[in-house]
Amino acid sequence: MAMFASAGTIERLVNALAKLPGVGRKTAARLAFHILKMPQQEAVELAEVILEVKEKVGFCAVCNNISETDPCAVCTDPRRRRDVICVVEQAMDVAALEKAEGFVGLFHVLGGRLSPLDGIGPDDLKIKELLDRLRGEVSEIILATNPNVEGEATATYLARLLRPMGVKVTRIARGLPVGSDLEYADSVTLTRALEGRQEY
Amino acid sequence: MAMFASAGTIERLVNALAKLPGVGRKTAARLAFHILKMPQQEAVELAEVILEVKEKVGFCAVCNNISETDPCAVCTDPRRRRDVICVVEQAMDVAALEKAEGFVGLFHVLGGRLSPLDGIGPDDLKIKELLDRLRGEVSEIILATNPNVEGEATATYLARLLRPMGVKVTRIARGLPVGSDLEYADSVTLTRALEGRQEY
Repeated sequence: MAMFASAGTIERLVNALAKLPGVGRKTAARLAFHILKMPQQEAVELAEVILEVKEKVGFCAVCNNISETDPCAVCTDPRRRRDVICVVEQAMDVAALEKAEGFVGLFHVLGGRLSPLDGIGPDDLKIKELLDRLRGEVSEIILATNPNVEGEATATYLARLLRPMGVKVTRIARGLPVGSDLEYADSVTLTRALEGRQEY
Repeated sequence: MAMFASAGTIERLVNALAKLPGVGRKTAARLAFHILKMPQQEAVELAEVILEVKEKVGFCAVCNNISETDPCAVCTDPRRRRDVICVVEQAMDVAALEKAEGFVGLFHVLGGRLSPLDGIGPDDLKIKELLDRLRGEVSEIILATNPNVEGEATATYLARLLRPMGVKVTRIARGLPVGSDLEYADSVTLTRALEGRQEY
């Protein structure tokens, strides 16, 4: 049954919004009503930028990060170190690491993580493309996949693959988040924090 | 600082999405990445329907409900009772009541509720328009504003205004939700459920 008997267009907008991740029908309806009341200019900007993103933004053929140019601005930046590659699961992780600062090397976006349950194997990730990049002057690969079960499995898989090729392979540190309380840390994180201790 | 150094369009999409209610910058970024990966056709449909809603959907001059026609399909439906008007806060409430069935009268959408803290007074709601409709053959006004503090205050205000005009004013029942447990009901709801008890 249609949610709004007399408003087919609103119903179609609700359907389109409900396809977004984490947006159920109730949230979609709330968003649709908001768009209805929004200033015309804002709604036009939203619609136009959706189309523009689809038209302009693609993927860098080198590192697989999202980009409006190919290769992307990071890969072509002459100020960055070309011998260190940080491997991440997705483009949002690049954005997070760039905000953190302190890293001036290049990136490689896998496009996901190994997940047998979801049927995602090595061939579904940009692993071959990573190996191709080793032919250059790469001295270190930093594995920055997520510190959860699937991210760790992906890192382990990559480490086994990369180490025999003579490249230094490192993993980002797992430990207590800055500003957190030891008291509330889970035991796995505490174990990792102890294992990863460094001399003062 | 830009979230994505090399992707101005994505950044603009994130900004546009972050203006939606309940969507922070992290959610906006997630939605933007989803749109980026979406099939072209779905993204085009989303953008087009946003524009179409702004172009086609307006408000019914009689009941203030959202509608693609004026007056709306409910107000012009000859099968509906014209002597009972159900007063609600917003268009989404009409949709909810229409799904519930059992009501065959007309609606009146106030466009909000009285909220002194937000600076929303009687003049900001479609109350004058409601009074104008009383000149017709109206025998009952059902106050279906939300059963919370502001909704109750709005209902009380309207009841005081309408009763002297010789029209029957009723309020939707407050009580235990169907399918709920008495054990877990809050005391205010229980009080209302007792007060509103009906003979078996």
